[in-house]
Amino acid sequence: MNAPLGALADAIVLPQPYLLFLGDTTEPSFAKTAFGLADWAADRCVGEFGVDGCAVSTGLPRMTPAEAREAGARSLVIGVANQGGVIGERWITALVEAMEAGLDVVSGLHVRLDSIPALADAARRTGRRLIDVRSPPPGIPVGTGRKRSGKRLLTVGTDCALGKKYTALALHRAFVERGLDADFRATGQTGIMIAGGGIPMDAVVSDFEAGAAEILSPDAPADHWDVIEGQGSIFNPAYAAVSLGLLHGSQPDVFVVCHDPTRKVILGLEDFALPSVEEVVDLTIRLGGRTNPAIRCGGVSLNTSSFGAQEAEALMAAERERLNIPVADPIRGGTAFAELVDSCLA
Amino acid sequence: MNAPLGALADAIVLPQPYLLFLGDTTEPSFAKTAFGLADWAADRCVGEFGVDGCAVSTGLPRMTPAEAREAGARSLVIGVANQGGVIGERWITALVEAMEAGLDVVSGLHVRLDSIPALADAARRTGRRLIDVRSPPPGIPVGTGRKRSGKRLLTVGTDCALGKKYTALALHRAFVERGLDADFRATGQTGIMIAGGGIPMDAVVSDFEAGAAEILSPDAPADHWDVIEGQGSIFNPAYAAVSLGLLHGSQPDVFVVCHDPTRKVILGLEDFALPSVEEVVDLTIRLGGRTNPAIRCGGVSLNTSSFGAQEAEALMAAERERLNIPVADPIRGGTAFAELVDSCLA
Repeated sequence: MNAPLGALADAIVLPQPYLLFLGDTTEPSFAKTAFGLADWAADRCVGEFGVDGCAVSTGLPRMTPAEAREAGARSLVIGVANQGGVIGERWITALVEAMEAGLDVVSGLHVRLDSIPALADAARRTGRRLIDVRSPPPGIPVGTGRKRSGKRLLTVGTDCALGKKYTALALHRAFVERGLDADFRATGQTGIMIAGGGIPMDAVVSDFEAGAAEILSPDAPADHWDVIEGQGSIFNPAYAAVSLGLLHGSQPDVFVVCHDPTRKVILGLEDFALPSVEEVVDLTIRLGGRTNPAIRCGGVSLNTSSFGAQEAEALMAAERERLNIPVADPIRGGTAFAELVDSCLA
Repeated sequence: MNAPLGALADAIVLPQPYLLFLGDTTEPSFAKTAFGLADWAADRCVGEFGVDGCAVSTGLPRMTPAEAREAGARSLVIGVANQGGVIGERWITALVEAMEAGLDVVSGLHVRLDSIPALADAARRTGRRLIDVRSPPPGIPVGTGRKRSGKRLLTVGTDCALGKKYTALALHRAFVERGLDADFRATGQTGIMIAGGGIPMDAVVSDFEAGAAEILSPDAPADHWDVIEGQGSIFNPAYAAVSLGLLHGSQPDVFVVCHDPTRKVILGLEDFALPSVEEVVDLTIRLGGRTNPAIRCGGVSLNTSSFGAQEAEALMAAERERLNIPVADPIRGGTAFAELVDSCLA
């Protein structure tokens, strides 16, 4: 369980444990959030709940909201994307049933749950909460740049959507396995559900972006690590503002560059070449040095999911040779990943 | 009058001409917005309006809201700060009178006018609008980085509050005086009132920061200039996210660095040294090059308001010598400023 973020950010601490809602989903790729929670927060999930037609499973026990409440669940988390942005009648019935059973409802969908009258009514009637993890908490302050106690690691990237969340989770797990005092600090919706709290950094007003990152990783004991989920890339022409505010406010001691070697252009913006890992290292040190002059690169997290084991090994070895820093794929783990962890903690 | 920003940003075009509201202000420094409007948008201000106790004047003719409406005014602009954040009874009576006379009310105050019941009621009753220039328009898209036609100049800074708005206004005026087709693009509340439209960049959600800057300076004829008001500084640990999103989305061909030689530390963050002009030039080219590889520095706008004429001249000459680029104080104008304009247009 994460350390509390203080009075302000308590507003976004999610009630746990969870019941995972799978809706009537038949396609596993729509249930990524549920699988992510089952992978990374299994100890805080009592079971799963689907309605008629549901054909996917996380492997957790199936139960009704009432059974889940009995088993200790405090909220139902919508673990699936709704196709076409519309929440159907069957979902609404299920969510109302959950509230009647005493569960809050946690959502990362684009549609705000309280904009659906049947859900807003049920929430009022039952006294349960509809919690939208895409909405930042109120009262985020302007950044100050003040140096905070404790240690911080931030995952950064050559682009969006290539492993920054996964890398932060894997590093956090490795730190804990080594007996260190560490928290995973979530900055996006799935990460927030996994952590049980956090701040959706892309939804914060620009003026408060660095301030939000500051309250996300508050003062901590000197040997405590916050492992912070990165967002976007300082080279992404659409999202660099998010990335720079997060970098400045996180004041990381160490960063890990996440990269997908098959990605040649920025996702969705094909006129923009992907920056090299070296460019990201260099610019991150330059910009991050503003709030932490001691910032350093811990290594590279290489997403080798498109490659076979041998190819992946060769690719990582070549990158290690070329860059002269640890290179690992957290999904493959092994000695390479242990070396990356060593380097981050050095 | 500025060129339209297209359907989206039409939402923030302010009804002009204005009647300037001075409230019951006795202290000129609280009426900076009114003075700014009288200086830079005198042709779009029909007069000024104060209530009992008002002891400041912009020099514009005093008139009642009804007289102003008769003279063509379409909105009353609150040109003064309200002390302590409270809007008193006398102000409310005056603003209601303005709406009854047929004027919309434009405000840059922190308090939202529609949160004051008497004003919200009067707006409903009279059919007039309460326009808050601190609120960005709805529907701002994510940035694309797509190269737009026309030319763009952005003022950047070593810090906040040292002349970026003034410099952009002065350069825009100089461009127009030279017969060029140019628009001033406003990014802060006073600038928006002067321009009659714009986007309050610091209030935009981070994910859309670059996208907001993109719609602020849309495609234009090849020889058209948008002169864009800068915000913050990429070296400011609180506000760099705003500055980088604005830089990426503006894709400027030319930037001018605004600097106050008496400022040694970041305003309000005294542990942070002010960056040098050279550092700002270098990092702006590096970051801005991502969306416009041809970006270049046009020169330096030096705020010499703390110095006598001779000292200011010597200071500018020394900086010119040291940096080998044009250095001018737009408030002092003269040959130095003409050279800065030449350099921007070169």
